[in-house]
Amino acid sequence: MGPAVKAYAVLELTDIASEAGRENDMTTTAETTQVQTPDPTAETFNGIHLETLQGTVAAIAKEPELGACKFRATNRWLGGNHNRTTVSGFYGAKQEIAHKQTFELHADEPPILAGNDEGANPVEHLLNALAACVTTSMVAHAAVRGIRIDALESELEGDIDLRGFLGLDETVPKGFTDIRVNFKVATDVENLETLKRLSTYSPVLNTLTQGANVEIRVEPK
Amino acid sequence: MGPAVKAYAVLELTDIASEAGRENDMTTTAETTQVQTPDPTAETFNGIHLETLQGTVAAIAKEPELGACKFRATNRWLGGNHNRTTVSGFYGAKQEIAHKQTFELHADEPPILAGNDEGANPVEHLLNALAACVTTSMVAHAAVRGIRIDALESELEGDIDLRGFLGLDETVPKGFTDIRVNFKVATDVENLETLKRLSTYSPVLNTLTQGANVEIRVEPK
Repeated sequence: MGPAVKAYAVLELTDIASEAGRENDMTTTAETTQVQTPDPTAETFNGIHLETLQGTVAAIAKEPELGACKFRATNRWLGGNHNRTTVSGFYGAKQEIAHKQTFELHADEPPILAGNDEGANPVEHLLNALAACVTTSMVAHAAVRGIRIDALESELEGDIDLRGFLGLDETVPKGFTDIRVNFKVATDVENLETLKRLSTYSPVLNTLTQGANVEIRVEPK
Repeated sequence: MGPAVKAYAVLELTDIASEAGRENDMTTTAETTQVQTPDPTAETFNGIHLETLQGTVAAIAKEPELGACKFRATNRWLGGNHNRTTVSGFYGAKQEIAHKQTFELHADEPPILAGNDEGANPVEHLLNALAACVTTSMVAHAAVRGIRIDALESELEGDIDLRGFLGLDETVPKGFTDIRVNFKVATDVENLETLKRLSTYSPVLNTLTQGANVEIRVEPK
């Protein structure tokens, strides 16, 4: 068990009771609702800046509306199947927050789908989002619980029948029907079942399995 | 109306009947089920290699099992909230198909979420996937119908309450609840309603709104 368990007890409010035999402290000593930025010299567990995460969690626990985030992206069509997304900042903790750098992401289709392979295609980008999110969720929640992970990798595969997208058969779903995510984790073998459970905290996973309301507007430019 | 309409009539099987006053030819002249790669000198519409797309559509219409695709990604945890996805190929048209290049995508979290901002975060990657997919779907299906698009851009914003992910309140959804996608399109204004309808062919959009089965396995490494 790592040094973070007591400090992060607040993060475990909903499920620590089910983890028999684990020490916990349901209080937090954080007195501030200020959002912190990482101190590079601060202690990490699984590479996570625990003190920073503690500050954020404690702040949201004390003032729940700090948890409301708006994540954003802008996209520009570059012709054909090629387009580029820009991500520069988001809204969280009741403030606009800029990323340290602006991220650009290119999407295209392979030649067989009439593109030039200038980027992963959109459904491959979706698999990337899922892989990244489940990984991050597992590692961060494991850190909170003092579960050490030495290495972690995953392989994802998802099924799509193009007849749906192409409009060839309206009974065929247009999106992914099944996605398989296989993790291999270097950790004590006794942790594997817990890690599988912690993966279910992933926001992207929950968006895919629970669905989201998506409103599309198309206006003249 | 562009030159592609007759050639792509097969793509419109399910909905062209609802487009009053539009010429169409429900047959296709393509006799091959061979998968084609683009000829750089071939005619394009909205930048789409129409002949290539025609070949793929005709092949799948003739032999439906060619539509079954498996898209793939692998991910490696790099420590903390930083991880990297690699996309190199997929299965489609009953064969393994390599991308012309291997794509690497980095994800991280911003400092406030205890990361180092080495990449867009996973839910931003999800917005990218959605933006890219709806854009591609709209442009390709517009090309098929001879709807010319001169420029297209979008802004996306999605709502997440971090209390769900953090486990602070189990009644709070962990994923996106609402996502707003606002397109601005340079096209004849009469096309806007059709373009909005065509956006609903997007596989990522359908995955988000209809949900997918996601199976997660966690094994020792």
